Amino acid sequence: MNYPFARRIDKIPRSFVREILKVTEDPDVISFAGGLPNPLSFPVHEVKKATSKILDDEGKQVLQYSTTEGYAPLRNFIAQRYSAQGLNVDSDDILITNGSQQCLDLVGKVFLDRDDGVVMERPTYLAAIQAFGLFEPKFHSVPLQEDGVDTDILGKLLRTEDLKLFYAVTSFQNPTGITYSRKIREEVAEILKEHNTILVEDNPYGDIRFMGDDMLPIKSLLPDSVLFGTFSKIVSPGMRMGWIVAPPEVMDKLITVKQASDLHSNYFTQRVVYQYLRDNNVDEHIQNIRRLYKSQRDQMVESIADFLPSQIKHTEPEGGMFLWITLPEGMSSLELTEYAMDEKVAFVPGEAFYTEKPEVNTMRLNFSNCCEEDIIEGMRRLGNAMKKMIIDKQLK
Amino acid sequence: MNYPFARRIDKIPRSFVREILKVTEDPDVISFAGGLPNPLSFPVHEVKKATSKILDDEGKQVLQYSTTEGYAPLRNFIAQRYSAQGLNVDSDDILITNGSQQCLDLVGKVFLDRDDGVVMERPTYLAAIQAFGLFEPKFHSVPLQEDGVDTDILGKLLRTEDLKLFYAVTSFQNPTGITYSRKIREEVAEILKEHNTILVEDNPYGDIRFMGDDMLPIKSLLPDSVLFGTFSKIVSPGMRMGWIVAPPEVMDKLITVKQASDLHSNYFTQRVVYQYLRDNNVDEHIQNIRRLYKSQRDQMVESIADFLPSQIKHTEPEGGMFLWITLPEGMSSLELTEYAMDEKVAFVPGEAFYTEKPEVNTMRLNFSNCCEEDIIEGMRRLGNAMKKMIIDKQLK
Repeated sequence: MNYPFARRIDKIPRSFVREILKVTEDPDVISFAGGLPNPLSFPVHEVKKATSKILDDEGKQVLQYSTTEGYAPLRNFIAQRYSAQGLNVDSDDILITNGSQQCLDLVGKVFLDRDDGVVMERPTYLAAIQAFGLFEPKFHSVPLQEDGVDTDILGKLLRTEDLKLFYAVTSFQNPTGITYSRKIREEVAEILKEHNTILVEDNPYGDIRFMGDDMLPIKSLLPDSVLFGTFSKIVSPGMRMGWIVAPPEVMDKLITVKQASDLHSNYFTQRVVYQYLRDNNVDEHIQNIRRLYKSQRDQMVESIADFLPSQIKHTEPEGGMFLWITLPEGMSSLELTEYAMDEKVAFVPGEAFYTEKPEVNTMRLNFSNCCEEDIIEGMRRLGNAMKKMIIDKQLK
Repeated sequence: MNYPFARRIDKIPRSFVREILKVTEDPDVISFAGGLPNPLSFPVHEVKKATSKILDDEGKQVLQYSTTEGYAPLRNFIAQRYSAQGLNVDSDDILITNGSQQCLDLVGKVFLDRDDGVVMERPTYLAAIQAFGLFEPKFHSVPLQEDGVDTDILGKLLRTEDLKLFYAVTSFQNPTGITYSRKIREEVAEILKEHNTILVEDNPYGDIRFMGDDMLPIKSLLPDSVLFGTFSKIVSPGMRMGWIVAPPEVMDKLITVKQASDLHSNYFTQRVVYQYLRDNNVDEHIQNIRRLYKSQRDQMVESIADFLPSQIKHTEPEGGMFLWITLPEGMSSLELTEYAMDEKVAFVPGEAFYTEKPEVNTMRLNFSNCCEEDIIEGMRRLGNAMKKMIIDKQLK
């Protein structure tokens, strides 16, 4: 049969990460390529207790269909946590989703017609390019600097183009690890207030800050905006539990498309997660994850100094799971992957994270899913790969 | 803010069922409106054992991210079950989804550009109209008869229109309870072989046959087609676990859009369901569900004879969860809802299930989610509502 596929199918970039993860199935390879949390952080015993409790107490109910919006006490828990942090959110403003990846899909459905303008960070989260790509928008991009997006360029772009959404990962960004400063947050809010462009703020790592000052999402300055959250980094990614925070007018549409997309998110798991959160001190748990990731991040920064050539630059993330390397001008991280494979170490070449104008000398390293010894050994290998490539280049 | 919503948003019909379910929150109302399985059929104890086992044995792993395709042993279990029934399926042909509702979303993404032609049954599954509606297709429809779709009209439509998909619920259809006969299945396969239109066959109730002969899905005659399945009716709907069976060329695209949509389905729950299936006799469990639903269906058919006016017609489903009532010509089931509300009984008016040419004198009754006493009492009330409406009509 000659299958009549939809036009959008050719527009979704095949996931680089997925291809690279296949290579890293070799147990001898040390991988900084994935974006996995450290399984040490998973509360296995507590999840078991929570599951037993809900099945004992309300087994028939927790296995039944439920409402599209999600389990009310779970939505309430999320709202109260925001409010405690200083972000005024009501439980009606929250929709439970299948991880924050589905938030992208639902927001795309609600807002994006073909050829609508969307602003992304440069570089940006790869899977957001894929999710929005399904709706065939026109991508624009604004470069990231050390303290967040370049607000001059953002302002200019918003004045000259018709743009529906600005997608931003404002804390410990994937792939760069960059966090928007307070000043940049305020400037972004000011700029967006003057336009009919909606901020779509993704904050999957917000809880994983291990140095510097806590900062509220830009949504606190811009109530009209949309914010994503997830339990993937603090409870379990395999459960695919996330949420969208949105104003009532947008929430109404989100619920309609969520229902059409899969009726509701896994109710059994919503109940498990809620019971876990209720019966345990999640803030204590988060403190443990922060400590774990901070020591891994510190080890990686130290190993950069120890093993990588002095010409490379890198970000110094205050949280999250990723660090961003810039090789000297003229070098290609894609070319480096071959040297790295020989040394049995993996990473993601930076060009995967661009909708336009890729900087081919960049690359992403993940530090959350490796023990410290593996980080040292992996960075030693990466250093060898870089040195070999530099020598080969100079010989040519 | 003046939110710039996408065009598609206005094209999704608001779910009638959802509105009606709100009314039925009144505990005094007996509801035949929903589409819920009977919680008596949920294997609570076995799910608890399965969950404890996987968390004890591989806790760190079952809470981690996983592959887009789904847990390989679960896909293999599904493939082997099909093969045992006589439908040749390989585990690579199976993608795990969030219930069969997500199958509709993913197939829409893979195939449907705006204004593409889609053939639906008349009447059809409401949530399929909503799911496909997101992609703004042109809906066409073919009437259902007692033994399945009208193949003369289907053939004529395929010859005159450019149509990408034909969506069919071939066994114990929602909303009518109608099952395609063997003859109609063969005719549909023959017709589709002559065209580049893809059969999208939804089979959520296939296991719940309580009378008549087992029949294979049309996919067994038409390997190029796409088939949906679900664990909602045999394990738990709240877990949102379904699957798509598709040929390799289509599967490749489905995996790409699934990844963009939510990375993968809940891995923890995939592991729970697989462990449950492995450690228990699911066929025995299905037999119990069949017995339960058969007695409820029989009670409803008996109560129709006992309480409803003799002028009404109804289907006699051999499985599934629904039965379809046709009121005398000129009567409106939407109008009947008001009389029914007074009597504290609920159903879904038929017109919710049409993409075009609604037959307003039809209505859907669910028999799976009521005990037999409630069926008797509910049908008594429904009979009273009908009689009152008929008298009012005659008085006018």
